[in-house]
Amino acid sequence: MTVSPVMPTLKYEHHVVEQYINPSTWAFVESKFSPLAKELLTKVVHFIHDECLPAEELFHAQIEKDPSLRWKVYPAIIEGLKKKARAQGIWNLFLSKEKYPDVGVPLTNLEYAIMAEMTGRSHHFASEALNCSAPDTGNMEVLAKYGNQQQKDTWLRPLLNGEIRSAFAMTERFIASSDATNIRTDIRQEGNEIVINGHKWWISGAGDPRCKVHLLMGKSDPNNSNKYAQQSMVIIPADTPGVKVVRPMQVFGYDDAPEGHCEVIYENVRVPIGNLIKGWGRGFEIIQGRLGPGRIHHCMRSLGTAERALELMLTRATDKRKVAFGKTLSEHGTIVAGIAQSRIDIEKARLLVLMAAHKIDVTDAKGALRDIAMSKVAVVKAALDVVDRAMQAHGAEGISQDTPLAAMWSGLRTLRYADGPDEVHLQQLGKIELRRAEDLWKRQIAREEKSVQLLKAHGIKSHL
Amino acid sequence: MTVSPVMPTLKYEHHVVEQYINPSTWAFVESKFSPLAKELLTKVVHFIHDECLPAEELFHAQIEKDPSLRWKVYPAIIEGLKKKARAQGIWNLFLSKEKYPDVGVPLTNLEYAIMAEMTGRSHHFASEALNCSAPDTGNMEVLAKYGNQQQKDTWLRPLLNGEIRSAFAMTERFIASSDATNIRTDIRQEGNEIVINGHKWWISGAGDPRCKVHLLMGKSDPNNSNKYAQQSMVIIPADTPGVKVVRPMQVFGYDDAPEGHCEVIYENVRVPIGNLIKGWGRGFEIIQGRLGPGRIHHCMRSLGTAERALELMLTRATDKRKVAFGKTLSEHGTIVAGIAQSRIDIEKARLLVLMAAHKIDVTDAKGALRDIAMSKVAVVKAALDVVDRAMQAHGAEGISQDTPLAAMWSGLRTLRYADGPDEVHLQQLGKIELRRAEDLWKRQIAREEKSVQLLKAHGIKSHL
Amino acid sequence: MTVSPVMPTLKYEHHVVEQYINPSTWAFVESKFSPLAKELLTKVVHFIHDECLPAEELFHAQIEKDPSLRWKVYPAIIEGLKKKARAQGIWNLFLSKEKYPDVGVPLTNLEYAIMAEMTGRSHHFASEALNCSAPDTGNMEVLAKYGNQQQKDTWLRPLLNGEIRSAFAMTERFIASSDATNIRTDIRQEGNEIVINGHKWWISGAGDPRCKVHLLMGKSDPNNSNKYAQQSMVIIPADTPGVKVVRPMQVFGYDDAPEGHCEVIYENVRVPIGNLIKGWGRGFEIIQGRLGPGRIHHCMRSLGTAERALELMLTRATDKRKVAFGKTLSEHGTIVAGIAQSRIDIEKARLLVLMAAHKIDVTDAKGALRDIAMSKVAVVKAALDVVDRAMQAHGAEGISQDTPLAAMWSGLRTLRYADGPDEVHLQQLGKIELRRAEDLWKRQIAREEKSVQLLKAHGIKSHL
Amino acid sequence: MTVSPVMPTLKYEHHVVEQYINPSTWAFVESKFSPLAKELLTKVVHFIHDECLPAEELFHAQIEKDPSLRWKVYPAIIEGLKKKARAQGIWNLFLSKEKYPDVGVPLTNLEYAIMAEMTGRSHHFASEALNCSAPDTGNMEVLAKYGNQQQKDTWLRPLLNGEIRSAFAMTERFIASSDATNIRTDIRQEGNEIVINGHKWWISGAGDPRCKVHLLMGKSDPNNSNKYAQQSMVIIPADTPGVKVVRPMQVFGYDDAPEGHCEVIYENVRVPIGNLIKGWGRGFEIIQGRLGPGRIHHCMRSLGTAERALELMLTRATDKRKVAFGKTLSEHGTIVAGIAQSRIDIEKARLLVLMAAHKIDVTDAKGALRDIAMSKVAVVKAALDVVDRAMQAHGAEGISQDTPLAAMWSGLRTLRYADGPDEVHLQQLGKIELRRAEDLWKRQIAREEKSVQLLKAHGIKSHL
Repeated sequence: MTVSPVMPTLKYEHHVVEQYINPSTWAFVESKFSPLAKELLTKVVHFIHDECLPAEELFHAQIEKDPSLRWKVYPAIIEGLKKKARAQGIWNLFLSKEKYPDVGVPLTNLEYAIMAEMTGRSHHFASEALNCSAPDTGNMEVLAKYGNQQQKDTWLRPLLNGEIRSAFAMTERFIASSDATNIRTDIRQEGNEIVINGHKWWISGAGDPRCKVHLLMGKSDPNNSNKYAQQSMVIIPADTPGVKVVRPMQVFGYDDAPEGHCEVIYENVRVPIGNLIKGWGRGFEIIQGRLGPGRIHHCMRSLGTAERALELMLTRATDKRKVAFGKTLSEHGTIVAGIAQSRIDIEKARLLVLMAAHKIDVTDAKGALRDIAMSKVAVVKAALDVVDRAMQAHGAEGISQDTPLAAMWSGLRTLRYADGPDEVHLQQLGKIELRRAEDLWKRQIAREEKSVQLLKAHGIKSHL
Repeated sequence: MTVSPVMPTLKYEHHVVEQYINPSTWAFVESKFSPLAKELLTKVVHFIHDECLPAEELFHAQIEKDPSLRWKVYPAIIEGLKKKARAQGIWNLFLSKEKYPDVGVPLTNLEYAIMAEMTGRSHHFASEALNCSAPDTGNMEVLAKYGNQQQKDTWLRPLLNGEIRSAFAMTERFIASSDATNIRTDIRQEGNEIVINGHKWWISGAGDPRCKVHLLMGKSDPNNSNKYAQQSMVIIPADTPGVKVVRPMQVFGYDDAPEGHCEVIYENVRVPIGNLIKGWGRGFEIIQGRLGPGRIHHCMRSLGTAERALELMLTRATDKRKVAFGKTLSEHGTIVAGIAQSRIDIEKARLLVLMAAHKIDVTDAKGALRDIAMSKVAVVKAALDVVDRAMQAHGAEGISQDTPLAAMWSGLRTLRYADGPDEVHLQQLGKIELRRAEDLWKRQIAREEKSVQLLKAHGIKSHL
Repeated sequence: MTVSPVMPTLKYEHHVVEQYINPSTWAFVESKFSPLAKELLTKVVHFIHDECLPAEELFHAQIEKDPSLRWKVYPAIIEGLKKKARAQGIWNLFLSKEKYPDVGVPLTNLEYAIMAEMTGRSHHFASEALNCSAPDTGNMEVLAKYGNQQQKDTWLRPLLNGEIRSAFAMTERFIASSDATNIRTDIRQEGNEIVINGHKWWISGAGDPRCKVHLLMGKSDPNNSNKYAQQSMVIIPADTPGVKVVRPMQVFGYDDAPEGHCEVIYENVRVPIGNLIKGWGRGFEIIQGRLGPGRIHHCMRSLGTAERALELMLTRATDKRKVAFGKTLSEHGTIVAGIAQSRIDIEKARLLVLMAAHKIDVTDAKGALRDIAMSKVAVVKAALDVVDRAMQAHGAEGISQDTPLAAMWSGLRTLRYADGPDEVHLQQLGKIELRRAEDLWKRQIAREEKSVQLLKAHGIKSHL
Repeated sequence: MTVSPVMPTLKYEHHVVEQYINPSTWAFVESKFSPLAKELLTKVVHFIHDECLPAEELFHAQIEKDPSLRWKVYPAIIEGLKKKARAQGIWNLFLSKEKYPDVGVPLTNLEYAIMAEMTGRSHHFASEALNCSAPDTGNMEVLAKYGNQQQKDTWLRPLLNGEIRSAFAMTERFIASSDATNIRTDIRQEGNEIVINGHKWWISGAGDPRCKVHLLMGKSDPNNSNKYAQQSMVIIPADTPGVKVVRPMQVFGYDDAPEGHCEVIYENVRVPIGNLIKGWGRGFEIIQGRLGPGRIHHCMRSLGTAERALELMLTRATDKRKVAFGKTLSEHGTIVAGIAQSRIDIEKARLLVLMAAHKIDVTDAKGALRDIAMSKVAVVKAALDVVDRAMQAHGAEGISQDTPLAAMWSGLRTLRYADGPDEVHLQQLGKIELRRAEDLWKRQIAREEKSVQLLKAHGIKSHL
């Protein structure tokens, strides 16, 4: 299994990087970047701005409008971009060499974070051009971490090469899937086969003609007293009989063809026993490992999306053709304040994500649970607010197909549910924080005793 | 020109009305409702809930998915509903008999407000079933108020009968149309003809196969020193050569077929001089008269939309099949608080709209300018918040095609621009409020003088 | 017992009233006002603006700064104002003649609402000048409703005459008093006496030298299985041995002398058995009856406070001596938007309060529980926001003693706890709303059945 | 001039530091801390928690309540704390050795930032105990940077030794002082003297009996065409004839004795010409240099305040004596969510401040202008929100003198004006951001050209 070697034709350009991140943030974190990471980041910045952004309109034009073809073809432009990216070595950047020495790239999560942000600037396909797009990223991690050699050869290799795409089948219809223990898809062993029956939806990528494999989470041991040992994960080739892609779910009217977020019914789907990942009852453990980095990747990209939206707001606000009441928008105080607030929103959120990425680096995803949860809640809120202001500044154009803003907003809005709704993260965070209370009580009591002594020594009686 | 007589088969049902508005609001405004209005309202409530809501899914199913047919047919169900509504006399309710004795219905704006709210509960087509949908309502008002007899016979009559639909062509591409004086569409007289050249977009309804006429606003006298006398309004039959419907604008991912919000180019469009409404230079005056009631109609409907969303949230929160972490959603305190806040948001906003409607009744749309602006800003914000909470409570289902919530939200979001963006309304409102400052200063100075005297009489020196 | 007759020297002035409420609101509710109410309202408007506002600085100057006298004297100006108000018949306006024919004033809650709003414009003492200030209002209602003749003669009469003031002792230290069942103050009968032991705080008015009586809530039957029958209410003359006013609680930095919100210890306080109100175990019932109208009175006054703050913002924003960056504040778009938002906030909240007041009129406080809770949460939030914007517009002066804004804000902030914290009201409201779910489910199921039939009739299969 | 040597008795304790900052943040920035800084930080953490917090109640008890003494004495406890701090070398930490080699401490702004945060945990006097409190810090910087040797000997030395305190006289009454060019205080040279006449207010510390010197900003050349060269700064001994401390300004009822924020009239105040700092017309330059670090110090301390408030919320929420409706507060979902949000608010804001401090380190205060402005707006907002939630969780106790919360909130609220109101910072920030627009336009045009070419190459026509 080979990954293109890094081709160091493009050197680190400090002025370019700090222009796209912002000089203060870059000064704050630069010392944590290796020379290679700086070079790769420089390449990513150029690739996104020189290759991806100018291709956006073509990409969208190449998506079929005819319902009979819409889910059968894919914009041709993306394959060209993938070739270019791979040739430059900006490929599979999400996959840590430290964790996966044979297939990974020597980048920390912090280093990758800013590259992922860059891909978020180009709506929709830049992360794919770099082979860093969900759900493939998480699936590759699962296979690299938990897969056996055969599973790696069959599925991980073509995924790493960008030859196929994949789906992750977890969310189910008819239950509250914010609570993963509710999952009902049935997984049974029959002889040398595994039989799967279940009803999933919001399976991203399942509509894509290039999607060749599903990683499915279901219940193999529903009566196990340990509710975190009831689940198993199975590899299902997309063309297995019984896998029925029912329909794409829409997101604010978008069907996101040709990838789609599909409703999929698994009806007596049979796969060989060798398709079980890691072992029976390991499903929960696998998704826990999978979710951490994925969440933070979404956050990183969301920041890029927000930066792009703010750029659009800045150009719209200074558009001399769009004068209202004798002024360009940028001469209205409320717009200026909105721009400033957007800048603040982005900077705060980015720092939170960078800190979480760094925490993953120095501990692991579990150790950064709290930071990841904080990032997710805060970043999505910030990005939604920034994009909403940008939409509003554009007038009705902002919610149409003529800017990427409305699609950006819709995509961001899904992240308030994806990988757990805000409300669940906030409850978890609050409970983690509350664990400090016991220690705080001890300290408070000690402090009050000392305070009473001090007061007594000065002849004063406390009211408390 | 005849309008179906009111068929008093259904009597006023107090318990039904107060259930759908809310008993406190109804107690507050009931005395302002005529017996006829109460009866009509009862009929509307039943019609919406018994006829329209159960037809929603069919309506959407009847919209063509095939691009080649999508804009050529219309859901058949709507015509049946229109017949039923007209037979019951709940038809053209928006059109005031007081203002238009020959064609209007004897309802005040306040009375109509609550009926319009009811239509907002059924997403998308209930207002049309009652022949009370935009932009036809505003266009009928324009024709009834400013049209000559021939214009009325040709266009108003079939609109009142629900035989045709219409478009209102005002917003233009390439300019900041929040400022209506920016309009550039050229209107010239050539002999007995008017020649129109312009580039409009967001022309709602222009994609509908039943749309037979456009009312277009343009500049006939661009150099007039009075910038409010430069505009004229012209009637353009939809099939006039040169009228080119370029494409539907999307709202988020929705194209809102078959009505659409279309980009329309008018290229050397020629109509007879008799198609000029009211006279040269009267355009601004006409749109001023048109906008007031229309804005408030949107507000009313938005409240119905919000009520519907809250109902969906309530059923979702109590869905026993959707238990997360051992509880239905309704057992989570944050959800309960969100429901309560939604109720407050709706009640506050509704009262503002009712007050504005009443103000129009006792003065006119101009006299209620401030109230209409307040309503628009406040109601749309409230409704967006309510719908967003409902979406979030539904999980990903809430942003999909399986509930009306995402489409509701998108539609409401457009109202933050339509008929003037929030920002413009707030500036206007603030300036109206600031007009009080001069009088307040006088009173403050008088009060301070009196205060100083009082202090002096008590031997005290003021610090102020 | 006599109340000053209404002296009809001042007639209803429509233009004055609509100026201070706002023409739209007045037009909306005027028909619900009796001729007497309009006349009284006119008098109140004049009294507040001509008598109270100019006396504010003197009032504050007359509050003692010397700690040894601060709680022993009261600003003399207030007694003069009380005489003037009583002479004009604007006295005890809160007390309904319908409920208390012998002592009440023939006003509805709705009519009183706007008068109470007027008193809220003058910070601190206008409601007292009209003998309509808390906690006396609630205490008078309790005595009028539940007191026996002797209790009325001894305590209600001087309160109605404005000769004494009173305290309401309910909130306790060391417990969570948002839950009234937590109360621990012990009330026991010993022979012909009642013995009270307890530790209360936030007892408003207890510091006032004119406060002659406490109405105290405690537990007389703590083991009663009905937790709403454990409480009783007792009348305690303020000078009874064992009543210890420990200290005034501060609200931010204010001690609100000479009234104060005091910590009070009741230590073996003995009163005759005749001081029990209504009967043993009736305490909860009494406070329920007491709380309703009181909450709404706070809301009404809060709106007056907000209006006053907005007036101050308007004069500050147009102060030609305060030019920053070449403009008065009123020329900055963000300030204009803040003014507009404040206007919207006030209007929405006022309508909610008026609706709640009207609901009390047509049902009673219990019937308006939901409306009162909504009002309380929404009005205080709105008023805090309005006052905060006004403070910010004033610069540091806004938080100082040179404007009433900071004291207004602090007083409003207490209302987020007083009579139940926001959080409790929201949970109650949400639960009331959730009671609708059962009926909504039935309707939804019926609707879905109808929808499926319709679809079937048209040969379409539903996805739901 | 000597500063106590660092006494290395206490070593760096990693577990202590990460407990008080939070492990993720500390992991993120630790590499930027020198060994000395880590050691000093450890000492500061212990000093605040072991010495300052237990002394809070005594400190407040030692403030005189008697008006005749209130401004004449100072809590004795503070001098003992100062001695202890100095003995440990945690003294004048704000003063950079790099900038002021002879008197400074070898700490970066980033290193100091977290120490300043610690002082913000102890309300009111911890920063003074470390001789790091405003306005002395800014004044010491001014004297160290712009003072001549005589000025340093006379005023800087005793300030560095904590022997005297000082005031900074800039804000003026009767003008909009958010715009510094509005200043009117008159500074004239007469012979060898400077004569000052002006009316200032909000002069912090001027009420303190230990305040021995004022640094005053006024206009010496009001007609200079360069409006930034009209101002000069003068040193005025506090006991100079004509310096009249009129009264303390209150902040939400607090007079903040004995320091106070005073109204001060300067009436024909005469000082020797040697008291001019730096030279005529240098005033604006001096305050620019002074403001940067001071603003960020406020931010840092505000974060400590917020952390303290959150700790109080955590202990209150888990207080088993305060059970409402059968649960401790921590079992109510809305409280848990509020705690989580507070944690997020703090983390985001702290990172912004740390980044700004680091930016000052690698450039200077001017280079970090944008970061400082962002921090100020964001941090104060965050801290106010956190403290408000904590107050609300405490019930009425939260706004009383029994917790530090109300005083914290009031102090934070002043920071929305101090050193420039939020609104001014947002406008500045927005304008800085808008400077990017020109470059963005160029890039957008280039991108669109490339996009059109791409489309053309694929035979597609763009709609844009």
